[in-house]
Amino acid sequence: MKLSRLGEFGLIQRIQRAMPVGRGVRVGIGDDAAWVKNPAGSSLVTADLLIEGVHFDLKWTSLFELGYKSLAVNLSDIAAMGGVADYAILSVGLPMDFDSNEVDEFYRGVKALAAPNRVAIIGGDTNMADLLIVSVCVIGHAPYRPVRRSGARVGDDIYVTGTLGDSALGLKLLRERKSQLKRKDVGQLIGRHHRPTPRLTAGALLAKYRLATAMIDVSDGLMQDLTHICRASGTGAVVWQDHLPLSPAYRALAGKDGTRLALSGGEDYELLFCARRKNRARVKELRSRAGVAITCIGTCVPANRGVVVVDDCERPVAISLTGHDHFKKL
Amino acid sequence: MKLSRLGEFGLIQRIQRAMPVGRGVRVGIGDDAAWVKNPAGSSLVTADLLIEGVHFDLKWTSLFELGYKSLAVNLSDIAAMGGVADYAILSVGLPMDFDSNEVDEFYRGVKALAAPNRVAIIGGDTNMADLLIVSVCVIGHAPYRPVRRSGARVGDDIYVTGTLGDSALGLKLLRERKSQLKRKDVGQLIGRHHRPTPRLTAGALLAKYRLATAMIDVSDGLMQDLTHICRASGTGAVVWQDHLPLSPAYRALAGKDGTRLALSGGEDYELLFCARRKNRARVKELRSRAGVAITCIGTCVPANRGVVVVDDCERPVAISLTGHDHFKKL
Repeated sequence: MKLSRLGEFGLIQRIQRAMPVGRGVRVGIGDDAAWVKNPAGSSLVTADLLIEGVHFDLKWTSLFELGYKSLAVNLSDIAAMGGVADYAILSVGLPMDFDSNEVDEFYRGVKALAAPNRVAIIGGDTNMADLLIVSVCVIGHAPYRPVRRSGARVGDDIYVTGTLGDSALGLKLLRERKSQLKRKDVGQLIGRHHRPTPRLTAGALLAKYRLATAMIDVSDGLMQDLTHICRASGTGAVVWQDHLPLSPAYRALAGKDGTRLALSGGEDYELLFCARRKNRARVKELRSRAGVAITCIGTCVPANRGVVVVDDCERPVAISLTGHDHFKKL
Repeated sequence: MKLSRLGEFGLIQRIQRAMPVGRGVRVGIGDDAAWVKNPAGSSLVTADLLIEGVHFDLKWTSLFELGYKSLAVNLSDIAAMGGVADYAILSVGLPMDFDSNEVDEFYRGVKALAAPNRVAIIGGDTNMADLLIVSVCVIGHAPYRPVRRSGARVGDDIYVTGTLGDSALGLKLLRERKSQLKRKDVGQLIGRHHRPTPRLTAGALLAKYRLATAMIDVSDGLMQDLTHICRASGTGAVVWQDHLPLSPAYRALAGKDGTRLALSGGEDYELLFCARRKNRARVKELRSRAGVAITCIGTCVPANRGVVVVDDCERPVAISLTGHDHFKKL
């Protein structure tokens, strides 16, 4: 079967089935990060491969931003397990005509995020390539039991940190070359696209107090990532459209897109998690310590009801899923 | 400065200087693998990025072989530290028109080496790309103190496991389309190119008995990798040309190449290490337990004598260094 037909998630399942689960693997392929216990301890491991033309375009991404984001997306995966990031391995394929100053700029971007998060860059591989390729592997540890995608139950609340859709709208503005608009809100959205904030503190607190029953970071778009949680947990979900946390900048500039980019735009790198209803007050209390807004956006329902968005009259909202599948043309 | 001028090793030094050494990092950028101690334990980590057209050509490499080798080169780095490999993270960029059977073949190749070495594939990232990209990160542990590149002293013996030059000669035969020759020795050399054997047992034994003072795996070519050891250790080296371990297949087919490919061909994935002279008998004893030949090929000399090859009359042999530098055209 051609990959374009199989799709990314079909492929991942296929790989998952083909690979035996080894000794010490607590969580293998298919969650935000792997959780392993080797003879010397327990680690969380995650990796991302970013390819020029697929994941980024140097027309509107500086090398500093690329470096920053390459690390950010991986730290976000560690956050989604409730872990602490310790080390990063960074491999790059670089075009021959690149200048060493450009490489320096890339690493400055990496460092700008690595340093405040106390992540050490410990190695990698450098290669020549026809296009820019960045491969990052982050290793962390789990001070508390890692939060998987599979623990949600019917009746659980669904929460998300921060605001949604900013990154996708920022990218849209970049593509439409509206980035030159010297408006503060335009800059904010583009900034959110280039320099997402991995929610490490929020993730660790949710794991520490065992509040999150299931957690994922929103990389493919809210609805698609919520579907991952629902599939793993055996539930459905109802999302209340008018509860979606939208930034003032998003509200000002979304226009005809309405909530579409917040629902399915992707690359938010916010945490999406479920929690028992009885813990509602405790989750609320967490907000200030997490340093980020936490908004209840829906509830888990029986699996046969699917994953739906409803408006304020409880009517289903038609949404077109435009989340990422790197093998399906959208 | 353009990367083509800076060169791969110049670039690595630059990155190394730009990145602060973090807490818990015992060995960072610049050795075969990183050695880290995180709150949960101690790990060895290594990564390699393989890009179609740079590192492999699907004209003469099957996907099974590519899968096998992608893991092998990383296990070899763990072997060169004297470690044990535990987990691998495998990210791939796959062309859209790939078939899922081709992907299966790739993972069968990975599994063929992972299973006997008890390495679990715990995750990764799958992406669409215009060309095939494989990024592997292997995490292991160090039951004994890891062997670095920097411990050699003047007077140390220099050893190498297995035989040298087979892989490079195998590649040459493939390129010259002599692979169809149904000769056993041709098949052996090509097999060595496609399915190198990471010397994990030898590496671990050398670490266990603290016999190796410095160690590296031969990926860039004997002379270049020996130069890495010498630079890190502050020594020079004399290699005796007539002591180089050459396989019967190499001897039969090298022809005009003589020892050239054994000295600088690369991709042998044998262990190159130094040991104190007083331990000569103990190294010799290790051979049968390591399951591979171990040959003394030279001796460490003062740094100002450089890194040279001499013939059986102690005359310097002129060699052209053709080891890999992915940013310099050779």
